[in-house]
Amino acid sequence: MMKEVGLGILGFGTVGAGVVEGLQRNGDLLAERTGLRLTIRKIADLDLDRDRGVEVDPSVLTKDAAAVVADPSVDIVVELIGGTNVARELMLQAFAAGKPVVTANKALLAEHGDDVYAAAEKNGADLLFEASVGGGIPIIRALREGLSGNRITQICGILNGTCNYILTRMEHEQLPFDQVLAEAQQAGYAEAEPALDIDGLDTAHKAVVLAAQAFGRSVRMDDVQVEGIRGIDALDIAYAAELGYRIKLLAVIKEEDGELEVRVSPVLVPRTHMLASVGGVFNAVQVTGDVVGETLYYGRGAGREPTASAVIGDIADAARNLAGRTPRRIPSFVTLKDAPAIRAADAMRTRYYLRLSLKDAPGMFGHVAQILGRHGISIASVVQKEVRSGEYVPVVMLTHQAHEGAFRAALDEIDVLEEVGAATVRFRIEDFE
Amino acid sequence: MMKEVGLGILGFGTVGAGVVEGLQRNGDLLAERTGLRLTIRKIADLDLDRDRGVEVDPSVLTKDAAAVVADPSVDIVVELIGGTNVARELMLQAFAAGKPVVTANKALLAEHGDDVYAAAEKNGADLLFEASVGGGIPIIRALREGLSGNRITQICGILNGTCNYILTRMEHEQLPFDQVLAEAQQAGYAEAEPALDIDGLDTAHKAVVLAAQAFGRSVRMDDVQVEGIRGIDALDIAYAAELGYRIKLLAVIKEEDGELEVRVSPVLVPRTHMLASVGGVFNAVQVTGDVVGETLYYGRGAGREPTASAVIGDIADAARNLAGRTPRRIPSFVTLKDAPAIRAADAMRTRYYLRLSLKDAPGMFGHVAQILGRHGISIASVVQKEVRSGEYVPVVMLTHQAHEGAFRAALDEIDVLEEVGAATVRFRIEDFE
Repeated sequence: MMKEVGLGILGFGTVGAGVVEGLQRNGDLLAERTGLRLTIRKIADLDLDRDRGVEVDPSVLTKDAAAVVADPSVDIVVELIGGTNVARELMLQAFAAGKPVVTANKALLAEHGDDVYAAAEKNGADLLFEASVGGGIPIIRALREGLSGNRITQICGILNGTCNYILTRMEHEQLPFDQVLAEAQQAGYAEAEPALDIDGLDTAHKAVVLAAQAFGRSVRMDDVQVEGIRGIDALDIAYAAELGYRIKLLAVIKEEDGELEVRVSPVLVPRTHMLASVGGVFNAVQVTGDVVGETLYYGRGAGREPTASAVIGDIADAARNLAGRTPRRIPSFVTLKDAPAIRAADAMRTRYYLRLSLKDAPGMFGHVAQILGRHGISIASVVQKEVRSGEYVPVVMLTHQAHEGAFRAALDEIDVLEEVGAATVRFRIEDFE
Repeated sequence: MMKEVGLGILGFGTVGAGVVEGLQRNGDLLAERTGLRLTIRKIADLDLDRDRGVEVDPSVLTKDAAAVVADPSVDIVVELIGGTNVARELMLQAFAAGKPVVTANKALLAEHGDDVYAAAEKNGADLLFEASVGGGIPIIRALREGLSGNRITQICGILNGTCNYILTRMEHEQLPFDQVLAEAQQAGYAEAEPALDIDGLDTAHKAVVLAAQAFGRSVRMDDVQVEGIRGIDALDIAYAAELGYRIKLLAVIKEEDGELEVRVSPVLVPRTHMLASVGGVFNAVQVTGDVVGETLYYGRGAGREPTASAVIGDIADAARNLAGRTPRRIPSFVTLKDAPAIRAADAMRTRYYLRLSLKDAPGMFGHVAQILGRHGISIASVVQKEVRSGEYVPVVMLTHQAHEGAFRAALDEIDVLEEVGAATVRFRIEDFE
């Protein structure tokens, strides 16, 4: 008789229904692979009437999530409620009962990671969260297992499918941001309230989870420099393309000189780089390790099925650990002794794409060049576009590397010059060299 | 006092030295991550004098590999000898002693996989082989763990860095095969005896390992249809590029109608597909699962450091299993009950790129079109090139899908036509739709 492992699923929304469907479809396959029968004992949701497109025995459904956590037939708690309050309480209850938790909740991990990692450790229970970053891409597992012999030096990720879909369509069809966002909302690729995605917060949540996992230190949301893609101009996407780049919303996490840089912003990526080929709703994460070199992981970043795939993989892992009596075979989080300090925003060094709006008259560039020079910023190339907007013309330049503080100070001076018609548009450049 | 796990390394060549260096560099980090101290107890090699660029205590070095396997202080055997005879014997000795084995030996797994998987199972010992496919890419782990909730439907991989390097340079620099191969040999990117790589055998070895792992059945080398890239014509690379494709040596493993198709050949890949962006010595594997959809894994495919990264990840895994007394937490190989049968070569269905050498006179295409039609092959597009080679002109056509058997029969007839000047060049096309 095959050993059964009982599951309690909290949250019967899109992902919850995907997990139930996946377990129904591939339950026999999982039993062959793991030697364990994964059985859904309880599903909690406030709405028990809605049709999710999957059939479940009505007796497993309940509105009482806490009772599911406490149910002695539930061995593994699968938290798919989302949000940071109720989900956190239920998770802590599960740990207090010594039960492992599988979650897709990046916001909770990013905002209360220290608490929940500590509670899992104290109670000797697994906390698995593959689904929290990169949907179906087994990136957390790659960091924890496959690359465990590496000191990670850099992670660059396209981690939000909505933003990548918008940027891809803007480039391919030369459409303005507002139109593409509106159409994405109609098609279900963007939320009615899109701020979490397009302002970069969702990507920042995922960056925090990855940074903590890879670099062995607690990272807070305040440690991340975040800019989103709201109102990005199709003009800049076109200019970037002419210069051989694509604009991607990128999370960049890297250790340099003993400091950890964590930032999220639209970035110019060389068109020949693998990350530039990641189109539409797909996600990808490039991980560089000191032994393995450069690796990259690609897949759908969100949605019912990819997320369900990650959740089910974690359930199988937690079940194996229960069966083998090896909970926390791999800790949820390991603090490393020589973990790097967080780098201050101004101390980051990057190249920049700048688009100035300059009066179309001889010598107008002189002041700008002077100010940049004074702040130690040297110019790699300048393209003056023959496009006129009133009395101003766009001047696009790519700089060499300089400190972010220097850019900030220089642009503060430039943008108040009499010959400058509008705030300078700027994007970081990542050359991956 | 941290628990020590003793390692016995068989083979102190390129990869062996990389493993030793990686363990020296990141031993403390691994100890923090795993709670275990991985200690090299013995290293066996026939050549004990050569300088490998790493320092080891001379007392660990020995010529007696069997003694290393038998040494009671050796808990994990790391097989890096290569080849299929001695390596197999030593591996079986290790299993007989109940010791786990970590290996990079794809040839052994492809040719004697059934034996060694069975011996590992019988003796309750781990057999881990992440390094055997895709170098530093944790693809085996992704299949065994992250994607365990999926029925795998298709795997397409660029698995040989030498071939990918040659094809990339041929395309970028429009150079002939022989010149690029010779330069690759000089630069150390290709072996002096390059057959294993360029004739597709190495890729086939890896395809066998992946196919068995993903589809749950024994796969033999005879089950794989193999063509390499030897003598590939720069002309076809250029024509493919004009048509929007790149030529890649691809392993394709897919389940369709209950049959498993396993083949290795140069394939036209759409230039917009991620696999087409994989340049130089890099490898990539696209895995499609019924829940997760399409995922892709990318990294350096061979060489000292990427391979060492994979070996060390496996050593950490085996050590965790020893410490937790959970050997074979995940079996090396699981036979699935409804595993698909191997599809016969003629029953495979693909599209083809055909380059005919036709007499440059009116009506010459008629016979060819007739023969193709009679074999149920319909033509998607034809491009007649204005290049002349004596009295013949190249005619390039892309077909719709048809059975391989039909192509073989049709080309047998076409190539003996009086108006055909040379054997028709053909490559499969993979559209990923």
